[in-house]
Amino acid sequence: MIAPSKQAFVPFVSVANMMRLVHAIGVEQVMVDLAAEIEADFRRWPLFDKTPRVASHSEIGVIELMPTSDGETYGFKYVNGHPSNMKRGLQTVTAFGLLADVSTGYPLLLSEMTILTALRTAATSAMAAKWLAPKGATTMALIGNGAQAEFQALAFKAVCGISEVRLYDIDAKATRKCAANLAGRGLTVVACATPEEAILGAQIITTVTADKQNATILTDNMVGAGVHINAVGGDCPGKTELHKDILSRAGVFVEYPPQTRVEGEIQQMPEDFPVTELWQVINGQAPGRTDARAITLFDSVGFAIEDFSALRYVHGKLKSLGLCDQLDMIADPDDPRDLFGMLMRAA
Amino acid sequence: MIAPSKQAFVPFVSVANMMRLVHAIGVEQVMVDLAAEIEADFRRWPLFDKTPRVASHSEIGVIELMPTSDGETYGFKYVNGHPSNMKRGLQTVTAFGLLADVSTGYPLLLSEMTILTALRTAATSAMAAKWLAPKGATTMALIGNGAQAEFQALAFKAVCGISEVRLYDIDAKATRKCAANLAGRGLTVVACATPEEAILGAQIITTVTADKQNATILTDNMVGAGVHINAVGGDCPGKTELHKDILSRAGVFVEYPPQTRVEGEIQQMPEDFPVTELWQVINGQAPGRTDARAITLFDSVGFAIEDFSALRYVHGKLKSLGLCDQLDMIADPDDPRDLFGMLMRAA
Repeated sequence: MIAPSKQAFVPFVSVANMMRLVHAIGVEQVMVDLAAEIEADFRRWPLFDKTPRVASHSEIGVIELMPTSDGETYGFKYVNGHPSNMKRGLQTVTAFGLLADVSTGYPLLLSEMTILTALRTAATSAMAAKWLAPKGATTMALIGNGAQAEFQALAFKAVCGISEVRLYDIDAKATRKCAANLAGRGLTVVACATPEEAILGAQIITTVTADKQNATILTDNMVGAGVHINAVGGDCPGKTELHKDILSRAGVFVEYPPQTRVEGEIQQMPEDFPVTELWQVINGQAPGRTDARAITLFDSVGFAIEDFSALRYVHGKLKSLGLCDQLDMIADPDDPRDLFGMLMRAA
Repeated sequence: MIAPSKQAFVPFVSVANMMRLVHAIGVEQVMVDLAAEIEADFRRWPLFDKTPRVASHSEIGVIELMPTSDGETYGFKYVNGHPSNMKRGLQTVTAFGLLADVSTGYPLLLSEMTILTALRTAATSAMAAKWLAPKGATTMALIGNGAQAEFQALAFKAVCGISEVRLYDIDAKATRKCAANLAGRGLTVVACATPEEAILGAQIITTVTADKQNATILTDNMVGAGVHINAVGGDCPGKTELHKDILSRAGVFVEYPPQTRVEGEIQQMPEDFPVTELWQVINGQAPGRTDARAITLFDSVGFAIEDFSALRYVHGKLKSLGLCDQLDMIADPDDPRDLFGMLMRAA
């Protein structure tokens, strides 16, 4: 068989190499870097090709494709959401993603994105909180202590200067796992027996639970003035975490309204419920937090541009770090019209 | 570093392995098999989750995602279309695809699909012609002798019993390449200097040109009675091959109307221009060819279900043939909620 040309190969970042990459840079530094990359792409939000993700729903989960493009580079992520996976020993969310060159359509990078999604989700939350949370916030309640929890804690430490996290999960085992993983990382970690206890003294409340149902993790009377809520877990139709009375009292900030109105906490509200797009706050086109006593809510569902930023970050690191394999993924005949000849000569 | 679990790996069919697979089975047998798989999936068309492909257009090309699901298995293809790539020594169309388990969202197969798309496109054309072309057709005109041409010729030989192909391309070099590749394969191959010469005596006319512009490969006076037209090259907005007068005279058969009305030859016609869905012909719900003198036209743009059928075929062959690598693509911690712990233990 004739050896494939260079053109045939696509750099692939495996799970093992993604973990090596994170350790080579340091997990908190990765959070800081990703928050900066995502913020930079939010600044140039209008030039991206945007579309709500393309979802294929089944009774027990969803598989989604999340494409975007800045006109030079195209990216998409494949991601699933299957809350029942956990009971089967599987991840609720797994993902992989791709970058391609818009001018040729040829892939530039294929990467695992289960770990990268966890990192970018936390970095996005922390970046948003930098703009929306009350100044000098030091304490975060973390309700839901599953796979995303530690990433959120470390991102808020690295990006926002949070020094205390107060953990609560309906399953005490999850809280123990989270507390053990966060031990020795420079955070004061308090395991709490109730959500009410977890939010005591917290300026930031992060909700990151996974049940696919309209749950009420926070009720209205639990949320005081001057708090920032980072609502991460409500991210598909029928899956919410907050009582709607909280939404009425809060200033609500979103990524991409056409997607958030279907998938986010605001799916509970009328279609014309007022929201502010986060990119406009970052760009100075809309106010963020206007009052120390206001309640701000980042109704986060995850948007394709965040994955694009994360993939570009990883792609940029490959030159210096290596940490990829070369996949023979693109057929590249010498004469581009001679695909059949290439196939036959391989006999 | 801890070795990844079995769950972490996704079988990957590289370009080299796809070529081995085709040779292990035989290219004509693959065409016959794929035509049967695609026909079987067209028979159960209503149960598929269908959506027009998600396209990201730029000035010089398009990148598309084509998802579908039968409720048990999910599949999607990434594919580009960049007619100008050819001048740069690159493929106009490259592709890869994925199958996943709907019940868990976990990938089952990642595969190159540049070669597989060429195979499934030809198999789909031939399958449609089996239902629509005049009985006893022996001669096919093949206008456009680029990367897809030989695949079309062999599929029509293997599936429809075509014995003569008459080649024409605006570039005589492409015709020479195509004729050389088809030599010794049991077909009478006639290289023609004009499209008019190519369609002489042909019961089937296949148009498979690549320019992204509204071109008129066939004019109305070139198409006589009792012919089947297999229009493959018109497959995105602004890219057509047939004069609209031909469409008015022909019975037009399509894959998925919402996509074909945007991308196919019928983009030239009013929105309510009558078409028949091919799956209904196969299912006996709509008539196909009703008259030996009728003109039938398969206005093919390629639909996600055809890729799904092709990926499932390849996936089914891996058990006996091997021919795949295992990609460490899915993070799989022992405790699914302990993604962070897995990452940290990898230090």
